Amino acid sequence: VTDQAARPLEVLPVQGMPEVGPGDSIADLVADRIQLRQGDVVVVTQKVVSKAEGRVVDTSGLDEETAKAALVARESRRVLRRRGSLLVTETHHGFVCANAGVDFSNLPRGRAALLPSDPDRSARRIRDRLAARLSFPVGVVVSDTFGRPWRRGLVDVAIGAAGVACVLDLRGSLDAHGRPLEATEVCVADEIASAAELVMGKAKGVPAAVVRGLPAEWLRPSSVAAEVVRPHREDLFR
Amino acid sequence: VTDQAARPLEVLPVQGMPEVGPGDSIADLVADRIQLRQGDVVVVTQKVVSKAEGRVVDTSGLDEETAKAALVARESRRVLRRRGSLLVTETHHGFVCANAGVDFSNLPRGRAALLPSDPDRSARRIRDRLAARLSFPVGVVVSDTFGRPWRRGLVDVAIGAAGVACVLDLRGSLDAHGRPLEATEVCVADEIASAAELVMGKAKGVPAAVVRGLPAEWLRPSSVAAEVVRPHREDLFR
Repeated sequence: VTDQAARPLEVLPVQGMPEVGPGDSIADLVADRIQLRQGDVVVVTQKVVSKAEGRVVDTSGLDEETAKAALVARESRRVLRRRGSLLVTETHHGFVCANAGVDFSNLPRGRAALLPSDPDRSARRIRDRLAARLSFPVGVVVSDTFGRPWRRGLVDVAIGAAGVACVLDLRGSLDAHGRPLEATEVCVADEIASAAELVMGKAKGVPAAVVRGLPAEWLRPSSVAAEVVRPHREDLFR
Repeated sequence: VTDQAARPLEVLPVQGMPEVGPGDSIADLVADRIQLRQGDVVVVTQKVVSKAEGRVVDTSGLDEETAKAALVARESRRVLRRRGSLLVTETHHGFVCANAGVDFSNLPRGRAALLPSDPDRSARRIRDRLAARLSFPVGVVVSDTFGRPWRRGLVDVAIGAAGVACVLDLRGSLDAHGRPLEATEVCVADEIASAAELVMGKAKGVPAAVVRGLPAEWLRPSSVAAEVVRPHREDLFR
């Protein structure tokens, strides 16, 4: 496995996406707006995937804090930390994040979005629809915005993937001096999600981007659940 | 503050960098190899910065595990977790990472690299030299490869910065529905470092990249130490 992109990358915002609703095909909405090429990786935010999959719940009649508390409890299998209204929990997928990914922004009042129930499957469906429409396969990453315990600010990471490597395994690789590499497993799916966030922003309604120019061998079957979610037995901080 | 890049991004590897030694000017090595433009952000890896700053120590005569243990102890102010030969420590800078950033790869045998003693200062020096040489300012990020507690695989993050925003503060911003954003602080410096890693790789000797096309207003005075390192009082996981 090589971990170097052979050429410059481009990160292209998908402009002009409409408001997405249940049943909409994100694959078609993206492919109608940008000419995809072989080797492209399409990054879509959790929010539009959740909207397309109907993972938006009606919270009208409840104040936001009450609704959030109930939804976070339902979407979590374990609470790790609590500070004020911030809960850090482990979701049913195994993600550790704030408020189990329950989010009220970029939605009408009285609505909350939950994470897709199986974001790898969400990515697979988008990839399958794109593959059926195009004459070549592309990779798909579903991204969300997570905090980190020891660093301020949030970054986008991959919560689902299809057709593009999540973690590159460089164990056994040697550096230019013939010494084993120290950094042997690189989470390129998270780096792809972060690169895409730089052109998507948080407030501007750009829920998809294309990363173009990644090494062809990175486009292979993949899964965030299998490759990225750290099992409890390996975890030093839970 | 807007958080959206107005146009596509390009991420360009800086090809043909030589082996770097003490006293070398990374700014000149980069600017000799790539035509920089206004608004560019130059990302350089910790390893070349440490080599240029002489932060490489002689460990010959010691076996690697003994040398590593001694150096990690010296470079850390606190050990958070230990498993086998892996130590997760807090460095004197406040970074939480494996082995205090002490690294033996991409060096001759009998040598170990330490993190720069002040990576923001390292970034500032590179930026100042570039600004003196060019007729316009550019941003600089010093990157390193860190693990994350709940996700497998490593990603590149910013350990130093100059002239480019580290954390965008979007508090008070409203989304398209007029609701406050949930994700209000975005660590774009880490996302820039991750985007750059995608073209640098770990084994191929590409220690610098240029991210082109970020919003002009992101180029402003900055500091990883001040903006990104989370103070103990805010920390839920230390």
